[in-house]
Amino acid sequence: MSEPRLNETHDPAARSFVASANVPGTDFPLQNLPFGVFRPAGEAPRIGVAIGDRVLDLPAAIESGLLDLSPELAGACAALSLNALMGLGPEPRRALRRQLFARLRSDSALASDPALQARLLRPTFEIEMRLPVEIGDYSDFYASIEHAANVGSMFRPDSPLLPNYKWVPIGYHGRASSIVPSGTPIRRPSGQRKAPEAEAPTFGPSRQLDYELEVAAWIGRGNALGEPIDIEQAEDHLFGLSLLDDWSARDLQAWEYQPLGPFLGKSFATTLSPWIVTIEALAPFRVPAASRPEGDPAPLPYLDSQRNRNEGAFGIALEVHLQTRGMREQALPPLRVSRSDFRSLYWTFPQMITHHASNGCNLRPGDLLGSGTVSGKNPEQRGCLLERTWRGKEPLVLPSGETRAFLEAGDEVSFVGRCEREGFVSIGFGECRGVVEG
Amino acid sequence: MSEPRLNETHDPAARSFVASANVPGTDFPLQNLPFGVFRPAGEAPRIGVAIGDRVLDLPAAIESGLLDLSPELAGACAALSLNALMGLGPEPRRALRRQLFARLRSDSALASDPALQARLLRPTFEIEMRLPVEIGDYSDFYASIEHAANVGSMFRPDSPLLPNYKWVPIGYHGRASSIVPSGTPIRRPSGQRKAPEAEAPTFGPSRQLDYELEVAAWIGRGNALGEPIDIEQAEDHLFGLSLLDDWSARDLQAWEYQPLGPFLGKSFATTLSPWIVTIEALAPFRVPAASRPEGDPAPLPYLDSQRNRNEGAFGIALEVHLQTRGMREQALPPLRVSRSDFRSLYWTFPQMITHHASNGCNLRPGDLLGSGTVSGKNPEQRGCLLERTWRGKEPLVLPSGETRAFLEAGDEVSFVGRCEREGFVSIGFGECRGVVEG
Repeated sequence: MSEPRLNETHDPAARSFVASANVPGTDFPLQNLPFGVFRPAGEAPRIGVAIGDRVLDLPAAIESGLLDLSPELAGACAALSLNALMGLGPEPRRALRRQLFARLRSDSALASDPALQARLLRPTFEIEMRLPVEIGDYSDFYASIEHAANVGSMFRPDSPLLPNYKWVPIGYHGRASSIVPSGTPIRRPSGQRKAPEAEAPTFGPSRQLDYELEVAAWIGRGNALGEPIDIEQAEDHLFGLSLLDDWSARDLQAWEYQPLGPFLGKSFATTLSPWIVTIEALAPFRVPAASRPEGDPAPLPYLDSQRNRNEGAFGIALEVHLQTRGMREQALPPLRVSRSDFRSLYWTFPQMITHHASNGCNLRPGDLLGSGTVSGKNPEQRGCLLERTWRGKEPLVLPSGETRAFLEAGDEVSFVGRCEREGFVSIGFGECRGVVEG
Repeated sequence: MSEPRLNETHDPAARSFVASANVPGTDFPLQNLPFGVFRPAGEAPRIGVAIGDRVLDLPAAIESGLLDLSPELAGACAALSLNALMGLGPEPRRALRRQLFARLRSDSALASDPALQARLLRPTFEIEMRLPVEIGDYSDFYASIEHAANVGSMFRPDSPLLPNYKWVPIGYHGRASSIVPSGTPIRRPSGQRKAPEAEAPTFGPSRQLDYELEVAAWIGRGNALGEPIDIEQAEDHLFGLSLLDDWSARDLQAWEYQPLGPFLGKSFATTLSPWIVTIEALAPFRVPAASRPEGDPAPLPYLDSQRNRNEGAFGIALEVHLQTRGMREQALPPLRVSRSDFRSLYWTFPQMITHHASNGCNLRPGDLLGSGTVSGKNPEQRGCLLERTWRGKEPLVLPSGETRAFLEAGDEVSFVGRCEREGFVSIGFGECRGVVEG
């Protein structure tokens, strides 16, 4: 793996004057610097950068003269969402990162100016995180071959993995309006379901509510309608990553999904982690695309490049935690129910981006691409309850004595994403959680 | 059919001082008054109302004192898109319609003020029509049972009409970014396709480019996430209708669509007619929902109401016209290749709206719902070439001596939508056309 992208902002020796950013295990050390949009109580939303347990108020930092930015970049940072910053492409973002890194270091001028720090750095507990972006279109892929094969074997026992899977990065259009930031309560959807033996469907609350562990990619610079994106340039259109919970009502989905795909089984809610970890922060954690099993076809040329083979994937350790109301009442901590790695996917984000634009479809700054549920080969690597409990046949047994086939009222699902590599400071994705209401 | 919605704005005797609005057969008589967004050469976009071959500049009309509107309504009319006006719901829109109707009548003060007319009414040829709305989400349905059965029999000969069809208003999420206004050239998409007998897919330009004749519904007032829309209230969320061409690459679609539905076979372009005909203008053309054949199940209660049965559908005569480059070179006019009626659909827009929100999914002002291809029982009523030529097996023979299985370079496809009823002035939808490039 070549490492041209590593620079001083990945220096493991660098420390911040924000003490909490130097605590091992923090998601937001100086080397991360993810972007988000926050709202201080009673004020307008604004762009922030996470550092330890503080958030740098970016417009205030610019106003104070802390940063030296072009008028265009400064304007984008003063917006109510990240779309404008995303649309500027990689170079301005990298320039901004270098300055943020330098200003937040322990040896910076700001380090010895507590008054200015108090103005610019807000404690996380004082603020509310919002969706960071006005999401134009949300597309959800299906890039884990283990997930596709598991789900396929339940929905289509005779043809679990369809013939197109190893050729086409399968995806579908998702619903943008119902994407919510971490912490938003999730209402159980109603809908039609039909048992195989029933004569007619019935309408009522879903009985098979599920989570789906996904990683989401944010589009930075867009492409014009009609202009595909070469796989070699795909990464220039990638702004960063977040965690995503693609809540699913399996009973609704099973009855509705043919022939046009999932619709109301998905569109009732999708939870996003509110911080966007940039591609620059992820540079040390790039890994080769997962090698294809012997006998699998090579990707078609438009989806193949040396660069993608060498470093098209990201090594992100992922976990799913579940805490029921019963567990909370017994003061039992959340239980880790799944653990996998994002690097295992059959298709990389550069491949998904290139495929998405290969017909000329225009991707716009702030568009969102979900990876699809991340599942590995082993049962404990499965990223949703449908797979984890094999459609409810093998319920989870919880420390409270309860069991779970699917989600019940009061259940809290939270995801963890962490990047670790010898010789580098680990980074994380922050919170992605939701509690099921009703 | 009850007709509480008919009022003075449907008076067939009323005429406009704009002479072209009184010509029989015009799409835009005084009784229509559709909304759109136009851009005069070198100026900013603004909201307009079509009347004959003129467009009323709505912000200019407000500024001139012609209209007496609440500050909220006036503000919405001065915006760069219709979203704000849509979000206000039915009452303000109806008040606006009544005023527009009165001011554009032949007996109004404006009728005798040519100087003011010249300032407020722009000839259509001087302006460029834009997309009228910032479209948040676009959902496409599949509401013609003839279309579903025809396509199903080609893609799945063993199960043409799936068991859910008569219960679920089947739909899927579409791509919002690639929706373009009428007249935008359509680039032929590339993508993967695989012949049934081929070992592997290939990547290249689509060989089966098609149009799809659809009617599109615009959401007016939205619903909050988690709050379904009762079928009795569905219409309060409906702003108006346009025509929509859901261009499709059948070879890409056939290979990619399982299991998650159509994606790149659709997302390269979708053409919209730029004028939105309001629900108020369509009031005289409401018709009972198509009766279900003997033996078909009744809709589940959440999709059923007396009002929907009585007047949930709209009678709109639809036509598809095709003109090839060869026909233009021989000065041959466009050929009408299909003719059908929107009233024949298995599901109505109120049912689609209620179903869409039944899981709590939030619809936002300016969201777009496609009806799906409108096809009737007879071959000449089929709304796409896939059906019209039965997947290319029965090519159209054109007056130029050419044949067409699917679209070729230079082909222009245009749709016509007209509402006619004895005792009322006919209205139309304006232009919905695109030329295939390459």
